[in-house]
Amino acid sequence: MATDHSRYNNIINLAQRRSIFYPASEIYESAPAGLWNYGPYGLAIRERIVQLWRRFLVRQEGMIEVSGSEIMPEAVFRSSEHLSSFSDPMTQCRKCNSLHRANSLLEEEVGGHYPEAMPVEKLTALIRENGLRCPKCKGELSDVRRFNMMIKTEVGAAGGTNCYLRPETCQSIFVDFARMVKTMRLKLPCGIAQAGRAFRNEISPRQSLIRQVEFLQMEAEIFFDPRDEDSIPNFDDVSNTKVNVLMRGSERIEQITALDLWRTGVVSRRLIAYFMARVQGLYRMYGFSDSDVRFREADKEERPFYAKETWDFEANTSLGWIELIANNYRTDHDLKTHMQGSGQDMLMVRGDMSKFIPHVWEISAGVDRTFFAILDKAFCRDDKRTYLRLMPRLTPIDVAVFPLLSNKNELKERARALYKSLLDHGLEAFYDESGSIGRRYARVDEIGCPLAITVDFESLEKKDVTLRERDSTRQERVSIERIDEEVRSRLWACRPPT
Amino acid sequence: MATDHSRYNNIINLAQRRSIFYPASEIYESAPAGLWNYGPYGLAIRERIVQLWRRFLVRQEGMIEVSGSEIMPEAVFRSSEHLSSFSDPMTQCRKCNSLHRANSLLEEEVGGHYPEAMPVEKLTALIRENGLRCPKCKGELSDVRRFNMMIKTEVGAAGGTNCYLRPETCQSIFVDFARMVKTMRLKLPCGIAQAGRAFRNEISPRQSLIRQVEFLQMEAEIFFDPRDEDSIPNFDDVSNTKVNVLMRGSERIEQITALDLWRTGVVSRRLIAYFMARVQGLYRMYGFSDSDVRFREADKEERPFYAKETWDFEANTSLGWIELIANNYRTDHDLKTHMQGSGQDMLMVRGDMSKFIPHVWEISAGVDRTFFAILDKAFCRDDKRTYLRLMPRLTPIDVAVFPLLSNKNELKERARALYKSLLDHGLEAFYDESGSIGRRYARVDEIGCPLAITVDFESLEKKDVTLRERDSTRQERVSIERIDEEVRSRLWACRPPT
Repeated sequence: MATDHSRYNNIINLAQRRSIFYPASEIYESAPAGLWNYGPYGLAIRERIVQLWRRFLVRQEGMIEVSGSEIMPEAVFRSSEHLSSFSDPMTQCRKCNSLHRANSLLEEEVGGHYPEAMPVEKLTALIRENGLRCPKCKGELSDVRRFNMMIKTEVGAAGGTNCYLRPETCQSIFVDFARMVKTMRLKLPCGIAQAGRAFRNEISPRQSLIRQVEFLQMEAEIFFDPRDEDSIPNFDDVSNTKVNVLMRGSERIEQITALDLWRTGVVSRRLIAYFMARVQGLYRMYGFSDSDVRFREADKEERPFYAKETWDFEANTSLGWIELIANNYRTDHDLKTHMQGSGQDMLMVRGDMSKFIPHVWEISAGVDRTFFAILDKAFCRDDKRTYLRLMPRLTPIDVAVFPLLSNKNELKERARALYKSLLDHGLEAFYDESGSIGRRYARVDEIGCPLAITVDFESLEKKDVTLRERDSTRQERVSIERIDEEVRSRLWACRPPT
Repeated sequence: MATDHSRYNNIINLAQRRSIFYPASEIYESAPAGLWNYGPYGLAIRERIVQLWRRFLVRQEGMIEVSGSEIMPEAVFRSSEHLSSFSDPMTQCRKCNSLHRANSLLEEEVGGHYPEAMPVEKLTALIRENGLRCPKCKGELSDVRRFNMMIKTEVGAAGGTNCYLRPETCQSIFVDFARMVKTMRLKLPCGIAQAGRAFRNEISPRQSLIRQVEFLQMEAEIFFDPRDEDSIPNFDDVSNTKVNVLMRGSERIEQITALDLWRTGVVSRRLIAYFMARVQGLYRMYGFSDSDVRFREADKEERPFYAKETWDFEANTSLGWIELIANNYRTDHDLKTHMQGSGQDMLMVRGDMSKFIPHVWEISAGVDRTFFAILDKAFCRDDKRTYLRLMPRLTPIDVAVFPLLSNKNELKERARALYKSLLDHGLEAFYDESGSIGRRYARVDEIGCPLAITVDFESLEKKDVTLRERDSTRQERVSIERIDEEVRSRLWACRPPT
């Protein structure tokens, strides 16, 4: 899908109109760009995204989950090398002083792909060659320099400690690794996961949830012995699963089984092929068909400074292909540097008593980006209506209940009783009596509610109701007696197996 | 309960030994105090605490829930008056430069209660009168001055925007209020809730989870028309519920029904009495008996700067009575100041077309403090063992499964199959085969696992297992066929009704 700005704008419009997400502190002019809030429906969808990740990836793979502080002392990032290397290439307008990410500017003005890690001299040369000027005022642009993206703060009163808001949740996983091995009796390979906020001082926050200053990650760090036989107990479950990959230098997405990914050396380890297949499976549960997603192999220049091998998991959206997950082979970079920086022993011992620092395969998913891609995928608009074709497992509401007319007490009472009973049965039910029935359908369609029940005069007599499906708008009569079961079976049919 | 340091130390010891919670970035000496991480068991308990709040308070009261950014621009806090008024009284040692909260120092060294809001001159006088010196080096202490507790940061590259990490989650609820009224079609009275992190630059972080720099809140802001008839549809549900209150100037906790709280004017509104009863009900679900908790009425000097009436909900712990929830009548302070500061209309219209700014009753609960109080309440230690008597609805694990001996394959296979089947049935099951059976019981007792199943040789023959209860350590044989049902009924018996 090429970039479709009108579709993107329609999605943002819906999100703001229904408070799915909207700019933080928007009533103040000084609110910085890149901060977004989630309203009730957005929050419910986001929670369900994280829950599915937790159930399908964290639990099923026997990982443990932790929750670390967002503020961490400078020493952590001196060790991890974020202090020296976690930076964006930046150019500043000499006239209006506005700042621009050099690689993004080139992508927008010239086209093509320019990695963040490209040397600043090369980026400067490209800006000069292409005669780029400030997009705001057409002023002259400065040479490109590196700008550290961490957000600094200070904790403590007098002579406080220099700290940073973590730029990725995983640093506390690495810092606490030795403690976890000991107190949780971990054996390799093992995964440690964390869902939480991270912060990056983006030079040009943009595209709403895609490039934010404050964002939510769900990260899994899988630790393994680089010398072990690379056996994965459940590999057979995925060996024939086809994974979409776009290899370095290639322009064609190929479908390769997990087994072949490893056997032909496309990826360096069986463990990597295994988790690529599992990730694609998770996103299938989010509603992405295999043709919507791909793993793009990153060039050396594109890879984060700590990664030896990177596969960006991307989804095709109205903004084009966007990265949802960075899958990084971080080697022993983090444990080794924290061991050096802190003196904490991070070594593990093999059966033959040799010692080693575990290596790490990282699955670093952006929750907000995943959220946006799901919304983008679900967004439908035709002559008659706008609706979100969300998977029932991700909708903020399971079922809506309406009395046909809002001025008839007997209908309202019956509808409210039904609503209450659905709630009591553990369904996320929603009741609405205001406005015409058409307006009420339209409102729940827009937030992706898969089923709506209407109580009318016939209901009082025949003890049945109208059940309407969101996608087909098909309506049928169902007896009140078996409505709970009927709703449940339609929702559950699409839920994940576990 | 008076302060019991040995008990407190035992709890902290257990928490660190099992990674329930532990100091953040602990491998670095420069890690600031007041930052804590949650390990897998702690996180699971914490999530269940928040879920129960969500189910029992947010949903049942028909509130909506939002999730705002943690970074907010300075303008927000200039309006809310946090910039000018959110401060602690501080004294500094003239010799070693260490900083101390003046009121805490007085409480520790002299005894009694000294509100944060006490004038600095009065605190200075008290320090002089009592001849207090620096507790670290016995140096002379400076006059008391006010220190703003917000954590400052900057967002944006060149000429960034001054921002703060929110000191309470509710500010985004107030800032976004007009948007919510419009897009969520709110009608008063209505509640808007948020669970999330907040940050305070504590001068002396201490008592682990009790006074942290970074902490989790679950807040509910209930908006109402101050002139309405103060009718609460469900008031009858609580009117006879006895609420424990400690009134200003009194030293005796009184049990007063919600109806009488309001009728005799102990609280200023029926709505306040209603939510006090509901809060006490929520904490009953967390495992607190009514004698463990109280609502303490705050003096004018103790109240936050925005509150006209404050009832601190406190629990009796090994650290003495600690505040878990600040219940504040914030009046129209926040909406009014944000309306003035931003120009955003926050007015609502009555039936008679008169306009008004809604008033707010706030229920601001500390998640970490609640967590600590629950752990403290659950902590049991006798000659033989340490165990957590957690309510089954709060335990990180529902049921553990052990093979009696770890070197017998047939036992291990049977136990693993049972473990897998319990997992598949949606229970949080846990499998362990390492160490003696006694050690394994001890390990799950320590994290509050309510039930443990042991598969032994008899199990293979008679198809039954040993089911052991955490609190009584009583064991009985249960057939494998009905073990799932048996586990479920024992857990569910203690779960909340909804």
